[in-house]
Amino acid sequence: MIATKGYAAQNAQTDLAPWNFERREVGPHDVQFEILFCGVCHSDLHQIKNDWFEGIFPMVPGHEIVGRVVKVGDHVKKFKVGDLAGTGCMVDSCQVCENCKQDLEQYCLEGNTQTYNGLERDGKTPTYGGYSDTIVVREEFVLHVSDKLNLAAVAPLLCAGITTYSPLRHWKVGKGHKLAVLGLGGLGHMAVKFGVAFGAEVTVLSTSPKKEEDAKKLGAHHFVVTTDPEQVKAAKGTFDFILDTVSAEHDFNMYLSLLRTNGTHICVGVPPKPAEIAAFSLLGGRKSLAGSGIGGIAETQEMLDFCAENNIVSDIEMIDMKDIQTAYDRMQKGDVRYRFVIDMATL
Amino acid sequence: MIATKGYAAQNAQTDLAPWNFERREVGPHDVQFEILFCGVCHSDLHQIKNDWFEGIFPMVPGHEIVGRVVKVGDHVKKFKVGDLAGTGCMVDSCQVCENCKQDLEQYCLEGNTQTYNGLERDGKTPTYGGYSDTIVVREEFVLHVSDKLNLAAVAPLLCAGITTYSPLRHWKVGKGHKLAVLGLGGLGHMAVKFGVAFGAEVTVLSTSPKKEEDAKKLGAHHFVVTTDPEQVKAAKGTFDFILDTVSAEHDFNMYLSLLRTNGTHICVGVPPKPAEIAAFSLLGGRKSLAGSGIGGIAETQEMLDFCAENNIVSDIEMIDMKDIQTAYDRMQKGDVRYRFVIDMATL
Repeated sequence: MIATKGYAAQNAQTDLAPWNFERREVGPHDVQFEILFCGVCHSDLHQIKNDWFEGIFPMVPGHEIVGRVVKVGDHVKKFKVGDLAGTGCMVDSCQVCENCKQDLEQYCLEGNTQTYNGLERDGKTPTYGGYSDTIVVREEFVLHVSDKLNLAAVAPLLCAGITTYSPLRHWKVGKGHKLAVLGLGGLGHMAVKFGVAFGAEVTVLSTSPKKEEDAKKLGAHHFVVTTDPEQVKAAKGTFDFILDTVSAEHDFNMYLSLLRTNGTHICVGVPPKPAEIAAFSLLGGRKSLAGSGIGGIAETQEMLDFCAENNIVSDIEMIDMKDIQTAYDRMQKGDVRYRFVIDMATL
Repeated sequence: MIATKGYAAQNAQTDLAPWNFERREVGPHDVQFEILFCGVCHSDLHQIKNDWFEGIFPMVPGHEIVGRVVKVGDHVKKFKVGDLAGTGCMVDSCQVCENCKQDLEQYCLEGNTQTYNGLERDGKTPTYGGYSDTIVVREEFVLHVSDKLNLAAVAPLLCAGITTYSPLRHWKVGKGHKLAVLGLGGLGHMAVKFGVAFGAEVTVLSTSPKKEEDAKKLGAHHFVVTTDPEQVKAAKGTFDFILDTVSAEHDFNMYLSLLRTNGTHICVGVPPKPAEIAAFSLLGGRKSLAGSGIGGIAETQEMLDFCAENNIVSDIEMIDMKDIQTAYDRMQKGDVRYRFVIDMATL
């Protein structure tokens, strides 16, 4: 077994604290990499607090993981020691179901294996995430990371990046489309970058007027303050797509009214309560409310390659491991531009 | 003005009763037809009871209207006296907006003119529906009706027919698709007929086991009793589309779980309360909840022509005008196979 240092929550009531645990030995199809940086996702906090469901404790969060390969199994072909590598929200899946065969491991019909707060395929061994110094992942779920980009700023691409890239690609958002990005946080700022890169006309929808300057700097063409009735009125019926990154409660019917006929509101955030959707909000313009979860492994690699080619990374604030609680506090207030990334050298 | 006999609700508290009113003289672009049959839609009852919004009273319901042309305006080209004709849920629209130009008058950006409980384009003259002996409609909103079919059974095609035909065509439902039809009423039974005609594998979802025989007679391949947990479990993740015709409250999250990855739940019914949608119900399989409202005029004509070619009509129970209240009572209990149609000769 491989001795591993990390930060864990012992239960849903405690703060994160140092914790030593063991990872499996590197098997023939496994890649072990030293974790250099790990992004801090809002879902880390949701999960250690049991906001969505009862978690598996002790819990080591973190699913935006990048580092350098230190060992590979005998049958590993795609990686060698010294390569940069990354892992996102999944570390395994059944790999044989209809969805896995179509590179949709995120929708594995048996359930994928989440990077943390999950169970390995044996159904009993807990998985531990990237707030730690090393990780062992089967080759198929390890991504190649370009050395052209700032490695720390690549980490958030593994969740915030693919979660916004995938739906924009799936719904073929691009030239000629008006895309609204709802919420300008970790996911939202990546959605703006991708939307602009794909040629869409991008509007940021935000409750906070002071984010306008930032939105424009990120490349957004327009900004709508959703607490201003006049601005909302002017935006009615104008968007082909809304990419909704908000995981707090919000008024879906108001946002649906901003869509054009045949428009699609795509949810990638997970609010704590169900959305209340009036039938007329959808019927009155053949609108759709859709959801999208991360992306498959092949698509994640495609996204990372696209980012390398187009010089796209996340805007980050680097933190020390010990400051994670402060980072969570700031994240809850939306006070981060736009993703905290833990420098694992500080562990 | 044209003296017209009809049945009206004088306000949301009273039953329907005979009422005489006037329709406009036939203008140069108008078609007047004698109403021979009018279907009874569940939305007639919702509207006279102000279930959705404050209605315009006196209200003459009815938007599944067929009859024979008795007069045409000087500029009318598509109809002549003696032709069969029909009118559905709309009698006008702005005809110049982006949506109208694309044959999507149902989504007219200025709002279409509803056949009853609406206002003419002047914004003040109320419209009166098909529970009456004659109607005047501008040519563009009058449909040709084939004489090959049972005319009374054609009436419901004007709303129940197009409302189910349009989304099945829009989402290209057909061969290779598993379609579930939720609710086996006026809309649902048409959805089964169209789904089968388009080549889909059709399953009826119903709370009522006794509807199975009827569903199979209508052409459905399978039947799932949604109150039986075992049957529901077996149906999880199996449907490409659910066409949801139910306008009572129901558990959308349960139905969304029956969709396959990338599946679409299409609402054409209007429940009294908003649907409560858990984010994971959509995210966990890139699913969509969509809405669709009736269909455009060109598509309604296409549907009527398709029905004439394929010998498709509604299954109906004919009633006398005076028995409308009994029909409403039975409709509310779901006791109708599958649409009441008023024989206007009984007015």
